[in-house]
Amino acid sequence: MIIVNFKTYLKATGKKAVELTKKAEKASLETNVSIGVAPQFTDIATVAKAVNIPVFAQHIDSIQPGSHTGHVLAESVKEAGAMGTLINHSERQLKLSDIDAIIKITRQENLVSVVCANNPNISVAAASLKPDIIAIEPPELIGTGIPVSKAKPEVITDTINLVRKINEKAIILCGAGITRGEDVKAALKLGTQGVLVASGIVKAKDPHTVLREFAEAIRV
Amino acid sequence: MIIVNFKTYLKATGKKAVELTKKAEKASLETNVSIGVAPQFTDIATVAKAVNIPVFAQHIDSIQPGSHTGHVLAESVKEAGAMGTLINHSERQLKLSDIDAIIKITRQENLVSVVCANNPNISVAAASLKPDIIAIEPPELIGTGIPVSKAKPEVITDTINLVRKINEKAIILCGAGITRGEDVKAALKLGTQGVLVASGIVKAKDPHTVLREFAEAIRV
Amino acid sequence: MIIVNFKTYLKATGKKAVELTKKAEKASLETNVSIGVAPQFTDIATVAKAVNIPVFAQHIDSIQPGSHTGHVLAESVKEAGAMGTLINHSERQLKLSDIDAIIKITRQENLVSVVCANNPNISVAAASLKPDIIAIEPPELIGTGIPVSKAKPEVITDTINLVRKINEKAIILCGAGITRGEDVKAALKLGTQGVLVASGIVKAKDPHTVLREFAEAIRV
Amino acid sequence: MIIVNFKTYLKATGKKAVELTKKAEKASLETNVSIGVAPQFTDIATVAKAVNIPVFAQHIDSIQPGSHTGHVLAESVKEAGAMGTLINHSERQLKLSDIDAIIKITRQENLVSVVCANNPNISVAAASLKPDIIAIEPPELIGTGIPVSKAKPEVITDTINLVRKINEKAIILCGAGITRGEDVKAALKLGTQGVLVASGIVKAKDPHTVLREFAEAIRV
Repeated sequence: MIIVNFKTYLKATGKKAVELTKKAEKASLETNVSIGVAPQFTDIATVAKAVNIPVFAQHIDSIQPGSHTGHVLAESVKEAGAMGTLINHSERQLKLSDIDAIIKITRQENLVSVVCANNPNISVAAASLKPDIIAIEPPELIGTGIPVSKAKPEVITDTINLVRKINEKAIILCGAGITRGEDVKAALKLGTQGVLVASGIVKAKDPHTVLREFAEAIRV
Repeated sequence: MIIVNFKTYLKATGKKAVELTKKAEKASLETNVSIGVAPQFTDIATVAKAVNIPVFAQHIDSIQPGSHTGHVLAESVKEAGAMGTLINHSERQLKLSDIDAIIKITRQENLVSVVCANNPNISVAAASLKPDIIAIEPPELIGTGIPVSKAKPEVITDTINLVRKINEKAIILCGAGITRGEDVKAALKLGTQGVLVASGIVKAKDPHTVLREFAEAIRV
Repeated sequence: MIIVNFKTYLKATGKKAVELTKKAEKASLETNVSIGVAPQFTDIATVAKAVNIPVFAQHIDSIQPGSHTGHVLAESVKEAGAMGTLINHSERQLKLSDIDAIIKITRQENLVSVVCANNPNISVAAASLKPDIIAIEPPELIGTGIPVSKAKPEVITDTINLVRKINEKAIILCGAGITRGEDVKAALKLGTQGVLVASGIVKAKDPHTVLREFAEAIRV
Repeated sequence: MIIVNFKTYLKATGKKAVELTKKAEKASLETNVSIGVAPQFTDIATVAKAVNIPVFAQHIDSIQPGSHTGHVLAESVKEAGAMGTLINHSERQLKLSDIDAIIKITRQENLVSVVCANNPNISVAAASLKPDIIAIEPPELIGTGIPVSKAKPEVITDTINLVRKINEKAIILCGAGITRGEDVKAALKLGTQGVLVASGIVKAKDPHTVLREFAEAIRV
């Protein structure tokens, strides 16, 4: 499984979000590997209408419908076509009680919860809240081009060991610094089920080719 | 001028956001009064495509394009079709330095800035940052059905007097508790140029009729 | 073990913080039960100098020494005489990553970490970060006079069961609504090692007598 | 007027806060220039007891007495001996509505309000809230050793001109990068009434000599 986080890159905003998602869909169809995208809130509806791959929100708020101007309602991202949401990305960190509340909201709304975590401790804490997916992203590697699988393999193996003690079901992804197929392969060997990537795809000269390389690394 | 804030009401989410906006457009066409809407981020694109009235975001973040997962980029709401944004709504209050930064961003992106303020002091502080529009909403009245024009007329007149000393150009709206055409009329008499409304329209049995009543109160 | 949280009550500010702490010290000496206090930051030094019982900060920030105007440095509360700190109280909730970072700071500074948690899920997440003490306080009971031991005994027993699976050492306290010795007794029967109290002591007509009653309930 | 912000520097924590304050007091007595200090919350009481110069808090929260664990109550810093407080320092920025509320609290409690601002716009917004003192600190210069009086004289003159249009009474300080007496002199020439300094004093080899130099620059 691959999730591409579009962040707030101009190269993945508006029309370009749709174009990039179509490349992800093509790579997914060609390889039969699940590739999802996490565009900005404003692009979820257009992106979800244009393709048939999983679309995630980058964040939702811990709110119920009502008087919450400027916040992001689970129901709104769902109706727009998202099937899940990132939670607690290192660029949008949340209070512990809000992570717990948001995971409960995703369960009520049948949204897939992808909780991001920066270190083994935080991954275990996140795992204890029973999200569907845990994505481990050491923040010091984000956007550096140094794959977590090379620089810090022990972060991933430690995390998996600890997480599995209290949560046997969650899918574990890893991220940060992944730019080549061999990085993806290394991540899988360490015991993860896939990757959460951003700049490695969004800033690539040819995102389709890179995504296809990633997907093939997973398929093999 | 009327701006309808959809907040995160289910009655103004997704398809219902489009339906409500069409009613606003109809009232605007019938009365020739400018009526804008502020739907949730996820609904901006769909709403903006469906109608020809001004669409506002409910908030944008003080960020530039790049690595800001889960944040709201000015460029993204603009490309989705918004022509402006609310800033510092009482349900989404911001640091002073962020209000300043966001107003500068709206200027760069040619977006209309609507800064919300809760009392005369804050309105003057907001006015000194040179937004296009200032919306005064005493938070204790929001959603109560007591129109600010009746309960606290001095809030509005004081504010206008103070604001005009340092900012002659900004449009001044008022909000909170407005449910009838006479509330709108009273607000205009006090010197405002229009209203920012939410539950008074969204929760109305017949939003089109109420909006038309509001618009006629402005036109006369 | 009893910890009395002084919050920002005027009855527990400044000189009154010292007086109240002396009553706590007296009750502790009379019963030989450990009673600590958590006064406001400004009162830690004066309180710690006046008595010989454990003093806790109510919060510290996730910072290192340096340029952090207006923040609370671990070293500063330690030098003032605190031997530990509350973390993530329901009135001062923190990001998951900050809870993790603050617990690490307390370890480096030899401060006792008391992480507060509102429900079983959050308690387990907190426990996975290896604090010294976990204090369970359902926020809906805080200040109500309904003891958690009566209203929600299952919250405590569930939490203890879950916490013990991943953390055998942490002391577990419970709080919220405790006003009588029998509430303390009930809490101990459920498997906790003590209580975190606030209004039950600070607002009591005779705090010394109530604290003595609480302490005797623990000693028996 | 000089205010020395101790931030969370170890060289200005605990006993060292008292020692540094005594040096400030000595320089103040020798020159008859008002020098105040802003130590950490935990050090206010000890510092205020040891000297007879103005002591400021670095921040207070927008709260009333009551259930606000881990927050900073105006009454607590006042009883500890502070006669005023910094508000909205660039390292502790606040929501606009909280700045307004805190200034009102300082007025009720007879505390001197020192609102920090980063640019002319924000200074004018701050001035409209009627604080006693406005301190202008361009954040890009803080801690650099480039005095604001040299690098950005127009920031100060612009600000003073704008501020005076709506607030004739507030004392205006400037800060950031001030390390020598001539920097202070330059700042006064531009129309300020003093300086807010931090690392220039706290990190100086001989803080007393530097403070005396600053004070003499003001006295002349």
